[in-house]
Amino acid sequence: MNESEILERIARIFARDGRYTKDLILGIGDDGAVISATDDPLVLTTDCAIEGIHFKREWSSLREIGAKVAAANLADVYAMGGVPKFLLVAAAIPKGASNEIFELAEGIAVEADLVGAQVIGGDLSSSEKIMITITAVGTTTKPIKRSGAKVGDVVVVTGLTGWSKAGLNLLQKGLTNSDKAISQFKKPNLPYSSAEKLAIVANSMCDVSDGLLAEANHIGKASSVTLEIDSELISKLAEFSEIATLGREISSDHWEWILSGGEDHQFLATVPANSDYEKHGAFKIGTVKAHGKTYVELVGRAMPNEVGFSHF
Amino acid sequence: MNESEILERIARIFARDGRYTKDLILGIGDDGAVISATDDPLVLTTDCAIEGIHFKREWSSLREIGAKVAAANLADVYAMGGVPKFLLVAAAIPKGASNEIFELAEGIAVEADLVGAQVIGGDLSSSEKIMITITAVGTTTKPIKRSGAKVGDVVVVTGLTGWSKAGLNLLQKGLTNSDKAISQFKKPNLPYSSAEKLAIVANSMCDVSDGLLAEANHIGKASSVTLEIDSELISKLAEFSEIATLGREISSDHWEWILSGGEDHQFLATVPANSDYEKHGAFKIGTVKAHGKTYVELVGRAMPNEVGFSHF
Repeated sequence: MNESEILERIARIFARDGRYTKDLILGIGDDGAVISATDDPLVLTTDCAIEGIHFKREWSSLREIGAKVAAANLADVYAMGGVPKFLLVAAAIPKGASNEIFELAEGIAVEADLVGAQVIGGDLSSSEKIMITITAVGTTTKPIKRSGAKVGDVVVVTGLTGWSKAGLNLLQKGLTNSDKAISQFKKPNLPYSSAEKLAIVANSMCDVSDGLLAEANHIGKASSVTLEIDSELISKLAEFSEIATLGREISSDHWEWILSGGEDHQFLATVPANSDYEKHGAFKIGTVKAHGKTYVELVGRAMPNEVGFSHF
Repeated sequence: MNESEILERIARIFARDGRYTKDLILGIGDDGAVISATDDPLVLTTDCAIEGIHFKREWSSLREIGAKVAAANLADVYAMGGVPKFLLVAAAIPKGASNEIFELAEGIAVEADLVGAQVIGGDLSSSEKIMITITAVGTTTKPIKRSGAKVGDVVVVTGLTGWSKAGLNLLQKGLTNSDKAISQFKKPNLPYSSAEKLAIVANSMCDVSDGLLAEANHIGKASSVTLEIDSELISKLAEFSEIATLGREISSDHWEWILSGGEDHQFLATVPANSDYEKHGAFKIGTVKAHGKTYVELVGRAMPNEVGFSHF
């Protein structure tokens, strides 16, 4: 299969009638894609994943890897109060691995389908190790910044964090105790519709890519407030006893997964105390206070030393 | 320097009052960037460069590499008849190489400055080899597709192609005969303003990233016509005798550089015969004919076997 045959097959994988196809003036196959002017501001995000750093081929299929990178990008758009519409994909793949390109593409397309988004362009090249960078474009009627948290806000999440890190720990130890944890590591199921509803009432918001406390710290710092996270409230979230049991089974600290594990892409937000956040698919885990000594405080447990993932 | 210090310094490098800063609602530092709604359609392009595949550290500085990847993206926006406004940069760099990140960032920022564009977001991670993916966003009042070439159009270029490939050949042979060729390989000077003017009259257009004949073939195929390229007209372009002399000096085929060498990012377009393309900074190298046996024909010379760069 030569390069133009590969590109034609990729274009077929991405060719679908998405929710926003009407806004697509020109898709894959030219120097760039062209979309219609929008009535609302645009949200733009980019995220990259590299073999050996962000994923391992022996742990995840290429379909899962494609879907996971797409999910991380879609999550970033929702975290800004946006709705993702279009994706651009730059991929580099070892020579001769054309089937692997198609698997990656299918994973991306299937995840994008979940929210009606569509891949409209990209770039393909060769490399020793697989590399994917996705850029997502969406629109927003009300951009939600990390800096919008207000004293008195309730801190909420769309669901329990930690499953992805738990799955990674299982894979690292060669264990299979929890299909749920492993599948959440391979490709987390994101609460896209909760995120969209939560954005209606949120004062500040982000997705948990680096760990719950690390993201709370980002919001606290950007807003010059302190997010007080209550471990007692976290322990009342659905699935908490399940993840605690898994932690004991494999002698791992489930609190480390929950507080510092990343890549779940649950949504963390602060909302006015009188907002009906529970109807918007979110659960209280704390409150926003005036800035104290740190931007995030943990009640009921000692603060872990490492609060998130750092690349450097 | 920790990750957040690195990110803050990168944000300072990219923080500048660009021509379109007024349209920036939220820049670097959140889950995504937010820009104002536009009156015109948007052009979106993405391009990736990987150490060892697209560039070598011993041949180019990181500043040049950053600028070159930015230029390739800006060129794609102009090739669509657009004006680039914003860039997103995903970069992966070996751990501990924070100075290298800043050099890359500075190269990108300086190239973007040439057209008033601005970096508004990105993603940073670690990797063994340097990887950069840039996504460019622009607007267009009149998208120019590859499929718009019409029989009777004149085929034009904004300047002589081949210098970049000539520079690569010099570096491969360890020669220094032409500073011009080497610098064009390291970081081509793109005729951005010619591209913007040419877009006003062009029926079809692309930038020469893969080689002149390969790009002509793309336009011919998309438009179902044949682009007849006249080598006699090419030999009348400015700098032709200079590149021919260089070819003889180092026993290389200058026609191979001109016809099949890539990465010059000159602009190739087809324009109505009665348009004042010369006032728009473009020079005739052929004509568009009804589709014959192939999508591109070369007059005055034998067609080379390889007409462009293929990754697979």
